[in-house]
Amino acid sequence: MSDSSAHQVHRSDHPLRVSAGRVDLRAYPTDATPDFTGGKTEGKEALADLGSPLAELQERLFAQGRAGAPAPQRSILLVLQGMDTSGKGGTLRHTVGLMDPQGVRITSFKAPTEEEQAHDFLWRVRRALPECGYVGVFDRSHYEDVLIHRVRELAPAEEIERRYGAIVDFERELVDRGTVVVKCLLHISPEEQRERLLARLDKPSKHWKYNPGDVDERALWPAYREAYELAVERTHSDHAPWYVVPADRKWYRNLAVGRLLLEVLTRLDPQWPAADFDPESERRRLVAQGPVT
Amino acid sequence: MSDSSAHQVHRSDHPLRVSAGRVDLRAYPTDATPDFTGGKTEGKEALADLGSPLAELQERLFAQGRAGAPAPQRSILLVLQGMDTSGKGGTLRHTVGLMDPQGVRITSFKAPTEEEQAHDFLWRVRRALPECGYVGVFDRSHYEDVLIHRVRELAPAEEIERRYGAIVDFERELVDRGTVVVKCLLHISPEEQRERLLARLDKPSKHWKYNPGDVDERALWPAYREAYELAVERTHSDHAPWYVVPADRKWYRNLAVGRLLLEVLTRLDPQWPAADFDPESERRRLVAQGPVT
Repeated sequence: MSDSSAHQVHRSDHPLRVSAGRVDLRAYPTDATPDFTGGKTEGKEALADLGSPLAELQERLFAQGRAGAPAPQRSILLVLQGMDTSGKGGTLRHTVGLMDPQGVRITSFKAPTEEEQAHDFLWRVRRALPECGYVGVFDRSHYEDVLIHRVRELAPAEEIERRYGAIVDFERELVDRGTVVVKCLLHISPEEQRERLLARLDKPSKHWKYNPGDVDERALWPAYREAYELAVERTHSDHAPWYVVPADRKWYRNLAVGRLLLEVLTRLDPQWPAADFDPESERRRLVAQGPVT
Repeated sequence: MSDSSAHQVHRSDHPLRVSAGRVDLRAYPTDATPDFTGGKTEGKEALADLGSPLAELQERLFAQGRAGAPAPQRSILLVLQGMDTSGKGGTLRHTVGLMDPQGVRITSFKAPTEEEQAHDFLWRVRRALPECGYVGVFDRSHYEDVLIHRVRELAPAEEIERRYGAIVDFERELVDRGTVVVKCLLHISPEEQRERLLARLDKPSKHWKYNPGDVDERALWPAYREAYELAVERTHSDHAPWYVVPADRKWYRNLAVGRLLLEVLTRLDPQWPAADFDPESERRRLVAQGPVT
């Protein structure tokens, strides 16, 4: 059923899917393991088991993208957001790393450059969109422009307000063009963040991940939570829903994002493109060619 | 020894390294397994064993890149070239896939767009260079501009001639700036190519990889070989040497490229950057902060 559209791949009853309306993140667990009964060992095995079906579906998606116009022009955009230490990097390594890197395009959004600042906030995001057939992954994203920008007042209130609507329109446009948008909020508790920051201080090999500024941002936790709640509330939609992934347990976070990817790929159901040549006559042509050197 | 420079990471006695001077590719084996005595099973295990040391060194390189100016600004550029079916995609999946995708940037060069054609041939290549700390991988590269361009006469002879020198200068510039350039020619026999093309015709799930034009290119095998020989001869250098990787056996090809990557990373010897803060006082600050929510 290659007519399954990018709109229909999200299950409305997914256990991690955010509920429409007012969002209170304190009501979402950070250490639960919805839809999984095992522990860490089983979780890691379950993640490894996703590798093979993920690879097959991803290759079909990629093949479809290469085939060009006649096939549906599909791609996937995975958006990873979360507080510092919530595990965006770990998810890239362990979950995104399960896929064939040939078909994956990762973009890590940092503080915008001067050139980027001189454009609308979506300019750099549009330039980083995955081509058809690809799985694009955003490590941070256009959501920073309504998160840290709101908390740190890096833009006027009316502009932040405008951006919620602009994001909804933008994501609608992506989905209409065939991109499946999967938005994950990696949800950790402030206590877990503290442990992770302390762990980074303990090991010289982790010092490069530590930034004294993180402690200052951490002091603004309630303001960030509120900014996340607003962002999720205002941009959650049927075509681009938010998933809140309990992320205090790293293994569960990796597994949950992997399952989400597998689920949307399964529902997207990409097909091997039909040959635009006759395999039999190509075989004869090759054999008739004889040695070429 | 973090002063090891991007110049010194190539072993002059590496068994896959091309010899300076006239290159006759027919003298280079396509099915040998230099420096490896086991078979396929052992080869796959040996590749898997590279995962962990590769990951550690790659993370150090990445950490160094994040630390900015004081540390040496290092990156790696792996260039994959080879005839159709030589296994560029397989190398990406199996070998490049061993690394953390967060620190890898893959660029697949296709036929140039109109905009790219309106620029010098290196324009699009420069835009795809890895940032410091990253491992960039080129699936095809600027070498296409002296390979298919030569064989198919897509550029005048004087322009092709100019490009050899331009490539040498360009790669010298990269290495001087701290990028290790690793150029691999995935070397298959024409008989092996024929088998692989036939195998693609056998399976509907491989049809998307088959292009009838490949048979026409194949007919030009001797011209391509000559173009490769010239390209390698003219652009082989101590700072950016060519490696000819026997690629008839996929497992060996993957292992050989993986070992090369591990070798240059080991010789580059990236170090965890020193903290630019005092871990003890940061720990106190975090603990003193108390609960934040």
